Amino acid sequence: MTLNKDWFTEICPESGSAFSLKLKEKLHEEQTPFQHIEIYETEHFGTLMVIDGFIMLSDYDNFFYHEMMSHPALFTHPGPEQVLIIGGGDCGTLREVLRHPEVKRVVQVEIDERVTRLAERYFPELCEANDDPRAELRFADGIQWVKEAPPGSIDLIIVDSTDPIGPAEGLFSAPFYAACHRALGEDGMVVHQSESPLIHQTLIREMRKAMRSAGFCQLQTIHFPQPVYPSGWWSATMAGKNAPLDRFREEASRNKPFPTRYYNCEIHKASLAIPEFWKGEW
Amino acid sequence: MTLNKDWFTEICPESGSAFSLKLKEKLHEEQTPFQHIEIYETEHFGTLMVIDGFIMLSDYDNFFYHEMMSHPALFTHPGPEQVLIIGGGDCGTLREVLRHPEVKRVVQVEIDERVTRLAERYFPELCEANDDPRAELRFADGIQWVKEAPPGSIDLIIVDSTDPIGPAEGLFSAPFYAACHRALGEDGMVVHQSESPLIHQTLIREMRKAMRSAGFCQLQTIHFPQPVYPSGWWSATMAGKNAPLDRFREEASRNKPFPTRYYNCEIHKASLAIPEFWKGEW
Repeated sequence: MTLNKDWFTEICPESGSAFSLKLKEKLHEEQTPFQHIEIYETEHFGTLMVIDGFIMLSDYDNFFYHEMMSHPALFTHPGPEQVLIIGGGDCGTLREVLRHPEVKRVVQVEIDERVTRLAERYFPELCEANDDPRAELRFADGIQWVKEAPPGSIDLIIVDSTDPIGPAEGLFSAPFYAACHRALGEDGMVVHQSESPLIHQTLIREMRKAMRSAGFCQLQTIHFPQPVYPSGWWSATMAGKNAPLDRFREEASRNKPFPTRYYNCEIHKASLAIPEFWKGEW
Repeated sequence: MTLNKDWFTEICPESGSAFSLKLKEKLHEEQTPFQHIEIYETEHFGTLMVIDGFIMLSDYDNFFYHEMMSHPALFTHPGPEQVLIIGGGDCGTLREVLRHPEVKRVVQVEIDERVTRLAERYFPELCEANDDPRAELRFADGIQWVKEAPPGSIDLIIVDSTDPIGPAEGLFSAPFYAACHRALGEDGMVVHQSESPLIHQTLIREMRKAMRSAGFCQLQTIHFPQPVYPSGWWSATMAGKNAPLDRFREEASRNKPFPTRYYNCEIHKASLAIPEFWKGEW
């Protein structure tokens, strides 16, 4: 079976696999100073954003990723008030973070303003919280931003980045995590998307090593479905500055005052279960 | 990006998506009385079996499916001694079932002997338990087999079938489940692969309805990663004849006397977590 030009295909060279979505039409395409962005209308996955040939998100299934990049970390930190999102230009993670009433301020630092402007136009539901007075959208270099943040000023840093090639490369490094460590308060945490738990085990191992060498005292890698990403299975790695991470606020999660589609208290615990083949791996 | 003839592609029309694997070579192809079978060597996923254009399994990731089709059910039944596998021709599920020392006999009823003969040749590690004296391989119609089984004679029926089109269609039906119900002992259970929890929610709802109408008293749908299947996320539905299913033998699972790659006690519990969007769905 071959696919004609009605399909968008992303090849994952490191696993010799490819994922394709059937298209209705191309809605937009542009080259920004940072990357190449395409927007499509697909047959079944709704609107699709592609950056540099890699699928970023679709209407149909972005809820897995955005909920799991935000709620597990927010319900693990004992009192997350000051949140920093690095990347996250589509604003889906920002929307989830702002669902937490205890959050007082979220600064989102996305390097490419065009991602956010296109999300406002093509993914309006993800941007519906952008006008929340607690949200501050900045378009700047996240690495520099963290370096210059006052020490101990942030409770949670969410690194909602693209893959570790292109503009996001420096985010997967010990110097960046060391800057995060300095910027975080005593109970502070960082959570970074960490690719496929099946295909990208080397990357996860190196990320965890870099986080440890930056001084983080405890790590947790959570996993969840994400159909449009390679292997359909994705992960995020949480790192605690000083306090251990096994302080999940289970009651708060169980009584969350907002709707979700994938996340809930039981899914939170499930995402922490360590598959047998991970053991001893990192 | 388009894929050339070096790729095998499976289209999932109901989700407008496709999954492809890069090939090294075609190892075998034949038309059996029941279906069309192809065997390929892939670049990263090892050997691949395709039936009627649908990916059945690869070396690289079949462990998710085979472990999750067997161990959760076997560690839920209080004393699984007599096991029947319907389908399962690649013998991967059979191998996992035979890891349980309390199992006294496993009859596997596969309609197409060629699937098993090709698995013996191309997936020898999955067939390494085929000579176990407790295993009995039959090549016959599973529906008829269950109809003719002595009432109350089986502890666990594992329906390791292809999709509900083609030879497996009759396995996704209330009359088949009613025959299973009759063939099972008091503590008896059935577990049937139930497709993607994201894409095939209608099928899962109908399967659960059919199981209930056949008299099963409690159902559990578990979920797990399965990269080569549509959405990369798969499910199995367990049904208990009379006894409730919330009797997971946690200690036995924690102390399992055999190796696994994905399954363990914590993963078992995680697979039971109900995503928010399932609630009220079935």
